[in-house]
Amino acid sequence: MHASNSSSEEEKFQVRKLQISDKNKGFIELLRQLTVCDSVSDKDFEDRFRELSALGDDHIISVIEDESSGKIIATGSIFIEKKFLRNCGKVGHIEDVVVDSNTRGLKLGKKIIAFLTEHAHLMGCYKVILDCSLENKAFYEKCGFKQKEIQMVKYFI
Amino acid sequence: MHASNSSSEEEKFQVRKLQISDKNKGFIELLRQLTVCDSVSDKDFEDRFRELSALGDDHIISVIEDESSGKIIATGSIFIEKKFLRNCGKVGHIEDVVVDSNTRGLKLGKKIIAFLTEHAHLMGCYKVILDCSLENKAFYEKCGFKQKEIQMVKYFI
Repeated sequence: MHASNSSSEEEKFQVRKLQISDKNKGFIELLRQLTVCDSVSDKDFEDRFRELSALGDDHIISVIEDESSGKIIATGSIFIEKKFLRNCGKVGHIEDVVVDSNTRGLKLGKKIIAFLTEHAHLMGCYKVILDCSLENKAFYEKCGFKQKEIQMVKYFI
Repeated sequence: MHASNSSSEEEKFQVRKLQISDKNKGFIELLRQLTVCDSVSDKDFEDRFRELSALGDDHIISVIEDESSGKIIATGSIFIEKKFLRNCGKVGHIEDVVVDSNTRGLKLGKKIIAFLTEHAHLMGCYKVILDCSLENKAFYEKCGFKQKEIQMVKYFI
């Protein structure tokens, strides 16, 4: 522990992995700022949590908790895709990045992306990719990403 | 079995799942038409094949074999991402779609995409996505996809 303000600030906003107890700390409410996400039952949450935990380092959900409020204020996930091409290469896919609209400007998004990118690197990926809106392009460029392709989607519902 | 030419043609170009023996049928050479893919040893191929097989329906590699030549002439893969958002929803990610440059015009790409899209649907995904170049946009539109976001990438090598 350090006494200085700057390191207190750093400790306040550390990135860590999602825990089951984060459901009660506003994790689902935070995702709702990104897209549709109705209430998830404790059972459904636990089932999905265990399914993803079973994938180990191949699927990580990172979060930042505001220690003062006990709320999850930023999140982002990554899964590691294993390919045959690129000599049985691996690719990190970043998904579901969101920062609480009340806490923007604290560079929490950058911290989340740095954490996930570092994870992909440590896992031996040859690249890490993500899809985003045109409005968020500049943010990801600051994180060291470049635009490459376009995303195509087909909805079933 | 039908005797007509059209059903013979259909049987000739059926989509099926990748098998270990496909390594000797030009599967790696086909991937090389898409991106860098040096020779993969039998051991590395088998290890990756078993790793992916262990994921069951959550990671499928589809291929089309030309029965007359015994060569793999088209492929495409999909993995199922499990999320918390969208009420613990699932998303299908299509990757590594390639059709042998000598066999284009036979709608093999469409068959591969239809197979993978149907798989995502059966797995209960709320959407299926993929990244492609601007040049391939029209092809995917014919397959029922629409452009949505942009893809950002960071390479480690």
